[in-house]
Amino acid sequence: MNILFIMYDQLRFDYLSCAGHPHLHTPNFDRVAAQGVRFTNAYVQSPICGSSRMSYYTGRYPSSHGAQWNNYPLRVGEQTMGDHLRKAGMDCWLIGKTHMHADKEGMERLGLDPDSVIGARQAECGFDVWIRDDGLWAQGPAGFYDEKRSPYNVYLKTKGYPAENPWADHANAGVKPVNRIASGWMFENADRPANIHEEDSETAWLTTKTIEFMQQAKDPWCAHVSYIKPHWPYIVPAPYHNMYGPEHVPPALRDNRERDNAHPVFDGYMNNKVGQAFQRDDTRQKVIPAYMGLIKQCDDHLGRILDHLEETGAMKDTMIVLTSDHGDYLGDHWMGEKSLFHDQSAKVPMIIYDPRDRANSTRGKTCDALVESLDITATFIEAAGGEVPGHIVEGRSLQPWLDGDSPAWREFLISEFDYSATPLAEDLSIAPRDCRLFMVFDGRWKMMHAEGGFRPMLFDLQTDPEEFIDLAKTHGFSDQLDRLYGYLARWGRRMSQRVTKSDQDIIDMRGKAGLKGVLPFMYDGEEVPRALTQYYRGEAPELPEK
Amino acid sequence: MNILFIMYDQLRFDYLSCAGHPHLHTPNFDRVAAQGVRFTNAYVQSPICGSSRMSYYTGRYPSSHGAQWNNYPLRVGEQTMGDHLRKAGMDCWLIGKTHMHADKEGMERLGLDPDSVIGARQAECGFDVWIRDDGLWAQGPAGFYDEKRSPYNVYLKTKGYPAENPWADHANAGVKPVNRIASGWMFENADRPANIHEEDSETAWLTTKTIEFMQQAKDPWCAHVSYIKPHWPYIVPAPYHNMYGPEHVPPALRDNRERDNAHPVFDGYMNNKVGQAFQRDDTRQKVIPAYMGLIKQCDDHLGRILDHLEETGAMKDTMIVLTSDHGDYLGDHWMGEKSLFHDQSAKVPMIIYDPRDRANSTRGKTCDALVESLDITATFIEAAGGEVPGHIVEGRSLQPWLDGDSPAWREFLISEFDYSATPLAEDLSIAPRDCRLFMVFDGRWKMMHAEGGFRPMLFDLQTDPEEFIDLAKTHGFSDQLDRLYGYLARWGRRMSQRVTKSDQDIIDMRGKAGLKGVLPFMYDGEEVPRALTQYYRGEAPELPEK
Repeated sequence: MNILFIMYDQLRFDYLSCAGHPHLHTPNFDRVAAQGVRFTNAYVQSPICGSSRMSYYTGRYPSSHGAQWNNYPLRVGEQTMGDHLRKAGMDCWLIGKTHMHADKEGMERLGLDPDSVIGARQAECGFDVWIRDDGLWAQGPAGFYDEKRSPYNVYLKTKGYPAENPWADHANAGVKPVNRIASGWMFENADRPANIHEEDSETAWLTTKTIEFMQQAKDPWCAHVSYIKPHWPYIVPAPYHNMYGPEHVPPALRDNRERDNAHPVFDGYMNNKVGQAFQRDDTRQKVIPAYMGLIKQCDDHLGRILDHLEETGAMKDTMIVLTSDHGDYLGDHWMGEKSLFHDQSAKVPMIIYDPRDRANSTRGKTCDALVESLDITATFIEAAGGEVPGHIVEGRSLQPWLDGDSPAWREFLISEFDYSATPLAEDLSIAPRDCRLFMVFDGRWKMMHAEGGFRPMLFDLQTDPEEFIDLAKTHGFSDQLDRLYGYLARWGRRMSQRVTKSDQDIIDMRGKAGLKGVLPFMYDGEEVPRALTQYYRGEAPELPEK
Repeated sequence: MNILFIMYDQLRFDYLSCAGHPHLHTPNFDRVAAQGVRFTNAYVQSPICGSSRMSYYTGRYPSSHGAQWNNYPLRVGEQTMGDHLRKAGMDCWLIGKTHMHADKEGMERLGLDPDSVIGARQAECGFDVWIRDDGLWAQGPAGFYDEKRSPYNVYLKTKGYPAENPWADHANAGVKPVNRIASGWMFENADRPANIHEEDSETAWLTTKTIEFMQQAKDPWCAHVSYIKPHWPYIVPAPYHNMYGPEHVPPALRDNRERDNAHPVFDGYMNNKVGQAFQRDDTRQKVIPAYMGLIKQCDDHLGRILDHLEETGAMKDTMIVLTSDHGDYLGDHWMGEKSLFHDQSAKVPMIIYDPRDRANSTRGKTCDALVESLDITATFIEAAGGEVPGHIVEGRSLQPWLDGDSPAWREFLISEFDYSATPLAEDLSIAPRDCRLFMVFDGRWKMMHAEGGFRPMLFDLQTDPEEFIDLAKTHGFSDQLDRLYGYLARWGRRMSQRVTKSDQDIIDMRGKAGLKGVLPFMYDGEEVPRALTQYYRGEAPELPEK
């Protein structure tokens, strides 16, 4: 079996027709959901690209792997999906984005050559690279955001796009009447068609690369197909740019009670530039149709992949996972972007198709078990026939749910967010190490704990599924808070760094020191078996049999 | 300034005359204490050799570095005292024991050659090795406990000791009338003189190696002089073997109330073979005088080092630290060995002499601040003129206390113990990952939390300095338990793995994405300064100045 691990960037859990979107029709996502299981309580370990992805790829919490925000390097030696799968005999390839930032200092300290196979995998988060394109070739007066070479820009140049940075001026910009670009960064341009042929746009290009990969790949493989879209800049080529309009934009899910005595961190996010921009109706009416168009385009290209799999007969031996690294507030809760833990941000689509007969009983079903993105690495290791190294990977395989079993499962899940690199840290005068937020969610109650001396936030999703009413503002919920803080404390004590000894290694160690002569408890040797007694008393000229 | 970081293995905090021992006179320890500061509340991060040492050497908690028991490899890439000191321009040498177990699998995964300088340092916990001798050359039917080559055994052979394993048969055994060895493993032999000339014993040999090192070392250096003694086997050469007798053995500090409804983990330790052996009066009367003799011998050899420093004028530019990796129950609390968190086990001597004038005001004083062994790495980095990397090193420099300042300081300290590799794990049917104990101590109240569903233990050292009365057996202390559990939860949420980004790196990152073209919040560009607006609107044909 091969694994197609498809990630869309910033795709909200509810912007799919199978998840109930009223206007957006995504027949290809739905086609996978109809043959697989759609997990309806899947949360990322951090609602931010880089950190979330490092958790997907390592199967470990941000606090465990340490890459707690975008461009925080993943420490050298941290083991990833690629390491585990290759150990189980499966290759692990990257096609698209990871947001991996190599630990150059650590690699240099260990003398690792970035051009060696080992060094390259360390630098690429354990993947072998078919194509790496993080999709943010932004450029400003201080240079490029991403200093690597953009294969996508190279592609566009070979196709004759004339700009110096065609990613910026063609794929992510429209054209203005005055013959200047209309940057996709500016929301007022979101309803323009991108200045590019659809077949040359990022989603189309990466899909072609994916099909090229599959046409030559040697089984068994795992391919992480990782699209930048529907992540901003919010602009999409024709015909997707005007498939949806303001009439398809739902009212913002926001409530004045949220602004009343708001938690200072939430308040900061509501009032930052992103929040302010998304509080404007004109922003939402321009951006959301473009966002929907981007998803529609993703769906069409997913169709190309599915068609390819069907035409080549590969559907029967390819596991498919469709997911995202986090959501997008889109103006809900007075916010834009991601960052906090409302479902719009921390919850993601998670659809898994297992081609094997064992999964026949669950096809087309949903599962509301509490899923963490950590579980993906564990699921893949099991799918590859390996054993999940529980002393390294903190997630659990989702296979039992695919098989129709109901295993004893986690009672709560954790997500984390670190805002230390943002202006909010300064506004609130919080030291970098205290700019850390933790979500605890048990399926009904959702708590946010903030380091730095703040009160928590608390929502009851049963009585308040929109998460408008922060119950921690009032008294009367200390029992729930205590319980959720108890979960958080339990999680805080988890064993996450004993990565050099498995449980089995430890069990196998027991009692061995004695046979190697370490016996610091004998008064006169009567405490140990006769053969050993003789040995240690110097009475046995011959060693007992080894 | 150079640093002499001297560690004695299993040296109890109270077996020194400067710490009030009634019979044991240790003038050389006292000599350092008289010129330095003696910290009276210094605790190790884990009362077991290997884990404790990895915390000393990394400045990180066992749960952070992951080497949670003896011979659990320290993961490749984990940074140590040696890494930090070399960065600050100071060499870092090892003379003696570390109990380091190399992460061979990790090194192989990263392609590190163990014979390269980088590989050797990885394998040696960051030290450059002057001499490595872990001092446990035990041998049994299953082979050697320590598979390395023993330089001490090589030395003994060159001196003509005839045994195949002279460590076992000479240094750690006496002679019986029938011309057979009397193994030091057996307590009945503890009052015999070791079968070796005193000047060839381990403590003497390592001291000679230390002086040889100092005679040639190039400043500035840190030398970790790490004696195996007074660690078992409890046997000492003449004349130390009969300097002390049963008349110098204090009554065991134990109380029948401890056995009544004891915590199951404590109960397991009281009733294991070590505990049973040390409950025998004949054990204590044989072992403790030998233990005292071993310490007296250490003190005499410390005198050799101090004399050398004085004779060479090096006292004025050598910082000296005297400490231990954990204590020894010696029958107190019905226990032998270490493992749990009573002061006999988790508290250590900690004497620091700073030769600089800045420390003149504190010479000969004691300090009762809550010191963790983690603090040593931080102290040395500061002494070497470096900056303590707070995102890696979890300890704090003790320098302010040496300078006579009273800094705001930690409210509690943490120690950990993992018994997953012991038979107790099986006896209690506890999974390896749940065999973890945590101590929280605030200077008065000491709590032990045990994973696996057990109740805690609680002592009030103000009203019960002997730690006989476990207050968690009774009701009435839930406020204290809640408070200490709150500390433990706070500690559990600590930031320990973000080792690739310093606080300053993060502060420097802020706001930079915008200048690199990532501006996902603009409606029409009015939100940003004019120059940038033009830039992003495509209206500025020239880039603004970089």
